[in-house]
Amino acid sequence: MSAEHLAQEMVRELCLAAKAASRQLAVASSAQKNLALLNLAQALLDQAPALKAANQADLTAAADSGMSAAMLDRLTLSDGVIASMAQGLREVAALPDPVGEVTGMWRRPNGLLVGRQRIPLGVIGFIYESRPNVTVDAAGLCLKSGNAVVLKGGKEALNSNLALAGLVASALKDAGLPTAAAQVIPTVDRAASLALLQEEDLVDVIIPRGGEGLIRFVTANSRIPVLKHYKGVCHVYVDQGADLDMAVDICVNAKCQRPGVCNAMETLLVHQDEAAAFLPLVAAALLERGVELRGCPATRALVAQAVPAVEEDWPAEFLDLILAVRVVAGLDEAMEHIARYGSAHSEAIVTRDYARARRFINGVDSSVVLVNASTRFNDGGQLGLGAEIGINTSKLHAFGPMGLTELTTQKFIVHGDGQVRQ
Amino acid sequence: MSAEHLAQEMVRELCLAAKAASRQLAVASSAQKNLALLNLAQALLDQAPALKAANQADLTAAADSGMSAAMLDRLTLSDGVIASMAQGLREVAALPDPVGEVTGMWRRPNGLLVGRQRIPLGVIGFIYESRPNVTVDAAGLCLKSGNAVVLKGGKEALNSNLALAGLVASALKDAGLPTAAAQVIPTVDRAASLALLQEEDLVDVIIPRGGEGLIRFVTANSRIPVLKHYKGVCHVYVDQGADLDMAVDICVNAKCQRPGVCNAMETLLVHQDEAAAFLPLVAAALLERGVELRGCPATRALVAQAVPAVEEDWPAEFLDLILAVRVVAGLDEAMEHIARYGSAHSEAIVTRDYARARRFINGVDSSVVLVNASTRFNDGGQLGLGAEIGINTSKLHAFGPMGLTELTTQKFIVHGDGQVRQ
Repeated sequence: MSAEHLAQEMVRELCLAAKAASRQLAVASSAQKNLALLNLAQALLDQAPALKAANQADLTAAADSGMSAAMLDRLTLSDGVIASMAQGLREVAALPDPVGEVTGMWRRPNGLLVGRQRIPLGVIGFIYESRPNVTVDAAGLCLKSGNAVVLKGGKEALNSNLALAGLVASALKDAGLPTAAAQVIPTVDRAASLALLQEEDLVDVIIPRGGEGLIRFVTANSRIPVLKHYKGVCHVYVDQGADLDMAVDICVNAKCQRPGVCNAMETLLVHQDEAAAFLPLVAAALLERGVELRGCPATRALVAQAVPAVEEDWPAEFLDLILAVRVVAGLDEAMEHIARYGSAHSEAIVTRDYARARRFINGVDSSVVLVNASTRFNDGGQLGLGAEIGINTSKLHAFGPMGLTELTTQKFIVHGDGQVRQ
Repeated sequence: MSAEHLAQEMVRELCLAAKAASRQLAVASSAQKNLALLNLAQALLDQAPALKAANQADLTAAADSGMSAAMLDRLTLSDGVIASMAQGLREVAALPDPVGEVTGMWRRPNGLLVGRQRIPLGVIGFIYESRPNVTVDAAGLCLKSGNAVVLKGGKEALNSNLALAGLVASALKDAGLPTAAAQVIPTVDRAASLALLQEEDLVDVIIPRGGEGLIRFVTANSRIPVLKHYKGVCHVYVDQGADLDMAVDICVNAKCQRPGVCNAMETLLVHQDEAAAFLPLVAAALLERGVELRGCPATRALVAQAVPAVEEDWPAEFLDLILAVRVVAGLDEAMEHIARYGSAHSEAIVTRDYARARRFINGVDSSVVLVNASTRFNDGGQLGLGAEIGINTSKLHAFGPMGLTELTTQKFIVHGDGQVRQ
């Protein structure tokens, strides 16, 4: 049997077990699921030495293979990371259980009482890169929302992930839940990822987390719906008459607070009437923080330090201290620029004008549209969802940050007294 | 240039125009959209002679090619069908507009006001078989929900569909809306369907309507998410202690009222304690209506007319006056049978027992779960959604019948006063 077939057989077994477990999880009580989450939180702390030993094996191999310091940092299970995983699980345990919620109920003329009830999606395939803490975060969110999960982590983290998987299994077992509710695929083989992406009869949704390369690989090869975003090309538009001090604060926060993430600003659009006053102000604040500015000709006429922007800069996700800057004639041109180059992720307007705030909110087709606030707020925790499993910039199922509720769907329930259809 | 490339070019042009139109539709007023719907309703009635002439060309070609009488009937645009299309459009115009609804809004500790606002999905690809009235029904629902639609109908209905598309375009234009909001692909070529299924950057969702072969073709070839159901293998379970007269009424309705549709019952499960009393009763009622019974051994011991059920009968969608019948030990065995052989479509329990009604509602993983009512109620109109574009038995996005609301998604909107992230 070829390696590819072996991977398929193994993944099929895992998915069959996950499917069976998902039926038990779907009707498990909130108390039982929370017990498993708290068990796991405690086990992470109790077993920290063993976890760090397993992690050290990954770190040593990764260092030998020449992994960068930044990547090694992401791979490390320090005491701080372990404590943070445990804390995250406790927070998820404290959140309301979305499963079983009846979101509406209405009576039909024939007396039927019709409602919609939240149910788990079923089995989730979760494919991610090097950070092993994602194993625990994802398992916790899937468990709380009543979903079974099959996890495929990065090859650099296999020892860490298997050690974590052992703790997850024990925590589930001790709470009387099936251990197949959260399984790590025990191989680094890409054939295993491909096999998982083909299990359309057993897996209900795929959630990838990682760089654009991973997301594109998953989307191109999946026969299962994928919830994902490729990139965040986020815009701030500074409107005519905006509060320019507020605009500077928002731009500095959106660009500099954490430039390597998907909700950071990548392009600044400025109304032509404010350009002369605003651009030197914001440029000074950004240049002071080491931001490279790439401007349109009008921008460069006002900011000597800006280098010329080229066409490739407008759709670019720099993920770095680089900002594209463009002067526009007004709101229409700003919205057209966003429609053409944006990624439907997060866009903000800074304005004092009521009508234009409403036009921006209604007309911009992005998962989070903000007035007078930083794009950095596109985050499940910041927006009040409690926890976040990822951000979706395709419109099916959920648009924007996804919390526990977005890991569920709704079925119709009907209470009758013998009604038949006429 | 090959025929395949020509189809790709043509479909690409249509999709680009649809994408542009979708931005206008997303912010169109309800009044403007309703005007287009009412314009179209009137035009269908006014232009009935021309429509029937175009339809006659399809009918003549279809008859020459040996199409069955039943299929010819589905292809026919009679005065009755035209009146019914017009009436359907008026009903859709009268429904509430889902676009713009803010489904919730909450304040964060930092003063941000966060809400979710309904928006259209964008561009919908609709692929269907021979009934030309679907062209108008689908265009109407997509328009009302603010979506552009690209329609690909069956080859037998091309002349009818193009005539209808002309009326749709005029109705849009007269209401000041872009004609590209609803376009019919003007070819019968399967390459055009394949091309449409590849336009993942322009088309947000594909909805197929037709037989299982069409649905499988679409799902196998689409790079875009598909909302669909393959088949409806619907069950009725008659519980211990059930009202047997009610159970007979529900079974006769679920099987016989319209046996060729997806929400008709295909398998009857009966508690062993009721089998001796119930099976002869229900068998008499069903046999009288010409139903062929395929039973398990316990069923056959009680119903002499039942032929033996084989393994292939349990997952079968007969779409005909045929019923598989099985005696089960109790609710657990019934639910296991449904989980194993069902299609997540519609399942009903007939019971007097409160606890078992609750267990069935919570434990059965189908899009519509009913207590003491016929499976035939799985229908958007019957459940109170107002109108229906189809039924989805995959769990992503929407589960069960889909109305106007299910043709939308929600974005996050954020009102701030200069907030930045800490």
